[in-house]
Amino acid sequence: MAIAEITVVPSGVGPSVSDYVVRAHQIIRKHQSVKHQLTPMGTILEGELDDILALIREVHNATFDEKVTRVLTLVKIDDRRDKVLTMQGKVDSVSSKLSS
Amino acid sequence: MAIAEITVVPSGVGPSVSDYVVRAHQIIRKHQSVKHQLTPMGTILEGELDDILALIREVHNATFDEKVTRVLTLVKIDDRRDKVLTMQGKVDSVSSKLSS
Amino acid sequence: MAIAEITVVPSGVGPSVSDYVVRAHQIIRKHQSVKHQLTPMGTILEGELDDILALIREVHNATFDEKVTRVLTLVKIDDRRDKVLTMQGKVDSVSSKLSS
Amino acid sequence: MAIAEITVVPSGVGPSVSDYVVRAHQIIRKHQSVKHQLTPMGTILEGELDDILALIREVHNATFDEKVTRVLTLVKIDDRRDKVLTMQGKVDSVSSKLSS
Repeated sequence: MAIAEITVVPSGVGPSVSDYVVRAHQIIRKHQSVKHQLTPMGTILEGELDDILALIREVHNATFDEKVTRVLTLVKIDDRRDKVLTMQGKVDSVSSKLSS
Repeated sequence: MAIAEITVVPSGVGPSVSDYVVRAHQIIRKHQSVKHQLTPMGTILEGELDDILALIREVHNATFDEKVTRVLTLVKIDDRRDKVLTMQGKVDSVSSKLSS
Repeated sequence: MAIAEITVVPSGVGPSVSDYVVRAHQIIRKHQSVKHQLTPMGTILEGELDDILALIREVHNATFDEKVTRVLTLVKIDDRRDKVLTMQGKVDSVSSKLSS
Repeated sequence: MAIAEITVVPSGVGPSVSDYVVRAHQIIRKHQSVKHQLTPMGTILEGELDDILALIREVHNATFDEKVTRVLTLVKIDDRRDKVLTMQGKVDSVSSKLSS
């Protein structure tokens, strides 16, 4: 299990790009093997590395349309193999130390 | 008002680095002019650009200690000046379109 | 054709990580369909998007070993489909404007 | 001495953004205390951390104009304090191991 963050940046449109984030999430929702969480700066994905990479590829490709001929996609993969890494577990381990 | 995401990666320690995230948040909490949100992949900051940059500098420097002599700090700044950008507003604009 | 930048960050080792960059380049060199350029902050790849993604996956997985159980991989994909994008072309277009 | 990579992404313009990279470099060239290197995916800076952060702030702010009301700026800071880190040294340490 890996956790990844993805941010897609369509070129030539904007300043608002929320329609493209919506389009990305319509794809992400169909991939039920990958959990997702929307943040103010991107979307975080949790699942098998290969499932995540396939999803990133699909979201990246879907960002192109008649107005968007260039896409910048940012990916950060956090992959830990000595224990199970989850989005919730990562936040909890920090929060519990902060509140104690 | 800008929104930024920061991830600090201390070198030479790990695989767990939550103690360093805790240390960063102890600093971030003192800067009351900057709002913050912990995510599974980093921390998101909202405030004036100069306040955010000063805070990033302080968190980066505080990550060094007797065990950590190298730090990789990742920053993503989203700065929109034609309207007020907030962490909540960014998520809401996507969520409302997704649920409609 | 897309251009991507990849940075692999092995956890728990360091401060020097050049052995891991060397290992990555030994893999990258075998993929002759993808051009590469080493920079002080990562490696830039040029080729078909699917070839690049397959290479990133292989480099990421190869960074794990008996000492490294966690890997952070950073990827930035710049994909332009209205004209051919090359590493050299991108630098040249800026350099020629700067020198004129 | 730290090394940082900066990529500025102006919103609402494009697909070509080389004019904005040119503008950034006209500013960077004036800061003689910071060395710089243009790559196909961004610009790498070498110097004192505070000089680099001041330069990033200036380049980010200069990217706004009458057409650009939103700017995404990506920063990656690599700061090593047990030895002097240089752009050339980082590349050389990998290249020498690769050729041996």
